[in-house]
Amino acid sequence: MAGSELTNVKSPRVKAARRLTKRAFRDQDRKFLAEGPQAVREALRLADVTLELFTTAEAELRHAELITEATLQGVPVHRASGEVMAELTQTVTPQGLVAVCRLVHVPLERALEGTPRLVALLAHVRDPGNAGTVMRAADAAGADAVVFTDASVDPYNGKCVRASAGSLFHLPVVIGAPVSPSVRQLKERGLRVLAADGAGKHTLDDVDLSGPTAWIFGNEAWGLPEEIRAEADDVVRVPIYGQAESLNLATAAAVCLYSSARAQRVP
Amino acid sequence: MAGSELTNVKSPRVKAARRLTKRAFRDQDRKFLAEGPQAVREALRLADVTLELFTTAEAELRHAELITEATLQGVPVHRASGEVMAELTQTVTPQGLVAVCRLVHVPLERALEGTPRLVALLAHVRDPGNAGTVMRAADAAGADAVVFTDASVDPYNGKCVRASAGSLFHLPVVIGAPVSPSVRQLKERGLRVLAADGAGKHTLDDVDLSGPTAWIFGNEAWGLPEEIRAEADDVVRVPIYGQAESLNLATAAAVCLYSSARAQRVP
Repeated sequence: MAGSELTNVKSPRVKAARRLTKRAFRDQDRKFLAEGPQAVREALRLADVTLELFTTAEAELRHAELITEATLQGVPVHRASGEVMAELTQTVTPQGLVAVCRLVHVPLERALEGTPRLVALLAHVRDPGNAGTVMRAADAAGADAVVFTDASVDPYNGKCVRASAGSLFHLPVVIGAPVSPSVRQLKERGLRVLAADGAGKHTLDDVDLSGPTAWIFGNEAWGLPEEIRAEADDVVRVPIYGQAESLNLATAAAVCLYSSARAQRVP
Repeated sequence: MAGSELTNVKSPRVKAARRLTKRAFRDQDRKFLAEGPQAVREALRLADVTLELFTTAEAELRHAELITEATLQGVPVHRASGEVMAELTQTVTPQGLVAVCRLVHVPLERALEGTPRLVALLAHVRDPGNAGTVMRAADAAGADAVVFTDASVDPYNGKCVRASAGSLFHLPVVIGAPVSPSVRQLKERGLRVLAADGAGKHTLDDVDLSGPTAWIFGNEAWGLPEEIRAEADDVVRVPIYGQAESLNLATAAAVCLYSSARAQRVP
């Protein structure tokens, strides 16, 4: 533990971390905040990602193994008052742990190294909770990468990091990718690009998903624009068997990704 | 439009509606609030469900067809000021329409009439957003009913109604069902009861889902307790192919329900 408890919300150290709650400063400082024991644990599993750790006295006792791990990695650990912690966190019931991390995204080319078989591309996804939940589902379904296009939410948004439940640290994430060149690159790497959209002629049940696939998921409210659908190899919809008009974006993405995962594995 | 615009948040009419944001009063008055054009539209599709409609002047113009439909059904329509609307709604950007509806749930026995083939049972689900999203996914997957056990969130909670995106009005919903008798009843109706839980011996990929199935979904944080898992015919987990620890409850439920829907339809 470096020094005494931080109690002043105006101290330079707290202000330097606090500004990372804003996207412009995350971009400028090349850092973001990962909140809660789960995110901190996953960050510490990667080498050289965690730059600083803030903890309350209570969290220090409760998550002693994380404090030890941070210390072993040479990560400065700062004990913070409840008031300081409230400045750095965005949850209603903060869990007393926040890590300052360096950005972890990679270029698309690197994300597609090897032989990628399942990729999720988020185009115009604006809700951070949805985006984080899609990252988590993509990770669970064994995806090789998640790509955020330039018109999508920032995956380092606090709500997105939380909803990803650590998955942001698990698989290669690409940010700010322009749609057309990304789709082209995915195709060049041998992936069949499927746009998930209610306007699809085919449903999940009548396409062969056994080959390498990249899924494009669109906006919560208005799906995918025609120009993106036109670039895909096919437009596929999740069949609606009941009276619902549509599915929530994250649940639709999970159903698509798991259909692929299954088709690629189960003969 | 009955009378002039309601501007007084303390008027008896506004207070009578406002109290329905609390569960105890919903239970007592046997009414709930459905917010936004989508929920109001679905409520009006059912006979005798909408009891009153509050609308702002702006929403009255934008959703004239809903106001007309309500009037045709003899539903009293009250024009309300923005301040009154804010009292009745819980969203950050209210859409200017709130319906007072009678409770729409049915007894389990009635929900299982006919030959049910797919049922979702929510045990200890506490997050209203998750519960609503599961209702929507169950509806989309063509489920015959959604059952909320007595330890689950109230499906008439505003956040749950919103997340259900109208599905609360689409399929039979049961509330306050005790777990054991409900599981027994589901089995008696010929449904195979599967508990969805990370502790499952079998995965979704190696169980035969072609027959009538009832899925039990548990709590967001701690899954299903042993005594509920023991009552199920089998415990099944969604396979995790990547590094994620688990899936979000609603996405896991969607994947399970769609696996059933597909297995029951695709030979």
